[in-house]
Amino acid sequence: MTAEIRSFADMRPLLRNLPQPCAESLAAVRARDAQLTKPPGALGRLEEIVEWLAAWQGRAGPQIERPLVAVFAGNHGVVARGVSAFPADVTRQMLDNFMGGGAAINQLCKTFGLELKVVALALDQPTRDFSRGPAMEEAEAAAALAEGMAAVEGGVDLFAPGEMGIGNTTSSAAIYAALYGGPAARWTGRGTGLDDAGLARKKAVIDEALALHAAHLDDPWEVLRRLGGREIAAMMGAILAARRARIPVMLDGYVACAAAALLRALDADAIAHCMAGHVSPEGAHREALERLGMPPLLDLSMRLGEASGAALAIGIVKAALACHQGMATFASAGVSGKS
Amino acid sequence: MTAEIRSFADMRPLLRNLPQPCAESLAAVRARDAQLTKPPGALGRLEEIVEWLAAWQGRAGPQIERPLVAVFAGNHGVVARGVSAFPADVTRQMLDNFMGGGAAINQLCKTFGLELKVVALALDQPTRDFSRGPAMEEAEAAAALAEGMAAVEGGVDLFAPGEMGIGNTTSSAAIYAALYGGPAARWTGRGTGLDDAGLARKKAVIDEALALHAAHLDDPWEVLRRLGGREIAAMMGAILAARRARIPVMLDGYVACAAAALLRALDADAIAHCMAGHVSPEGAHREALERLGMPPLLDLSMRLGEASGAALAIGIVKAALACHQGMATFASAGVSGKS
Repeated sequence: MTAEIRSFADMRPLLRNLPQPCAESLAAVRARDAQLTKPPGALGRLEEIVEWLAAWQGRAGPQIERPLVAVFAGNHGVVARGVSAFPADVTRQMLDNFMGGGAAINQLCKTFGLELKVVALALDQPTRDFSRGPAMEEAEAAAALAEGMAAVEGGVDLFAPGEMGIGNTTSSAAIYAALYGGPAARWTGRGTGLDDAGLARKKAVIDEALALHAAHLDDPWEVLRRLGGREIAAMMGAILAARRARIPVMLDGYVACAAAALLRALDADAIAHCMAGHVSPEGAHREALERLGMPPLLDLSMRLGEASGAALAIGIVKAALACHQGMATFASAGVSGKS
Repeated sequence: MTAEIRSFADMRPLLRNLPQPCAESLAAVRARDAQLTKPPGALGRLEEIVEWLAAWQGRAGPQIERPLVAVFAGNHGVVARGVSAFPADVTRQMLDNFMGGGAAINQLCKTFGLELKVVALALDQPTRDFSRGPAMEEAEAAAALAEGMAAVEGGVDLFAPGEMGIGNTTSSAAIYAALYGGPAARWTGRGTGLDDAGLARKKAVIDEALALHAAHLDDPWEVLRRLGGREIAAMMGAILAARRARIPVMLDGYVACAAAALLRALDADAIAHCMAGHVSPEGAHREALERLGMPPLLDLSMRLGEASGAALAIGIVKAALACHQGMATFASAGVSGKS
């Protein structure tokens, strides 16, 4: 499916005829939930989570046998403008750290039994500085979209895309501003820890870019190409591939949601299979989630990326499913119902 | 320590000379955190959690080798006034369900590797209807306090007290109103699922009780004796015993926090070792947590009790500790620091 993706035109058909939530599976888990030994609704969002798994997996008995986290890494030419607190080399160094098991996401995946895949995207070819011109050629963005799609294999039953890329909160802020309206100040945060001067510089660079590309930002594909990054394109591809394979997607934070926002701008229904794992203090992630219509599961002031917020949220998902699968019914446990 | 608890006077000495947070252990985990391969502060509340574990365990290398959940069950005479959607028999039936492994808390403990202890408190002797007189004799409350203390054994390194007791949100609402000011309407929720008429009845019963006991509600011990329940007394004892043994405590929802609020009313420092696991939509739990000065870790619209919110939160705690213990440092991973 992904070998032929050489342009945005090759992507468009993949957005059509997307699988829809399975009403029968939803009804089945609701019927079972009503029999479990607890007051109706007492497990709150845990019940909503199980309904979401069932509806998108299309299974009356949803399961999490193979949850996958994929971290996509890309480099950003805009880093040359001094928009990050860390040097660009850190993208590759952290990739090595992921491979060596030393990053936060490694520990989170180990804690909750999640498979971790790490995908480097042409790290020696940073995107171009998007304040001076488009970040990518269409073919470059298409290649990254295809790599993202390829990362989601059959058999996976819950998926979380994450990212690593020094400079990518700058790219994401520009994307939010392009999709939802600027100025940069509305969407821009400190990323890995900019000081006040750095933050002012980052906003100025983004506003420059928004002005430069202003005539081309009505098309979300052009927003991706001009302001995005390879890891953002890859996450778009991965989220879409998951949808086409009926795999529910847990979204991570500020950067991952920029990919989701682009997909949603292309097709309002395209991210209906996604849940927001965590709201970050970075930029206006909370407002972005409101735009996406997704109340986050967690709000723990994390701002790390790497799919760390999504991985934590999957811990909650596993617990929710365990309740649904393992709890006794009123009848089997001999517990009286409502008076 | 607990054998001699026959009166509130026997409890008072146990509130003195409580262990304080260990500054050295706190400094040690902060120093390690600063070396881990992530921007400073990027793990948000996960970092706060590890500091909390270290400070209260008094260990530079905090651990969770034996996390314990204890569910205390008691019956409430006030149920005769029609304040619950479920019959009083359900308390014992659910206890059997806990023992049989069929309740939500069993699945949550299994998911996160938590030991579960279930403690029945004189289920065949419900407290008296507190709208007609004091719920308990002092000796009865003292016995429940002692049972709670005894439930927290040495070797436990993280503790969550929970409860089961048809009628106990009525008791808890009365306690909050007594401690923080009424009327009942301010604190009273639908519990296991009261309809509008039931909710009105519940509020009226609580307001009756607040009027009846008005002259005696300045003393938190009397609030416990007159308006509380055995499981609430037991949770107070358990939280206090944990403090004395330097065991951090993860609080559950509306009813568990009523026990914490009583302890705090006795001594403002007595629950400093506690963290709020989850904010419930029941009653005014959110306002109660604000009174306690505890921002909750989770907000998932759960209103089940059984320590379910606390158990989920411990899943987050385990993940936080795994990050702290397992992550590489900038030096060991060869990752560059800030520019």
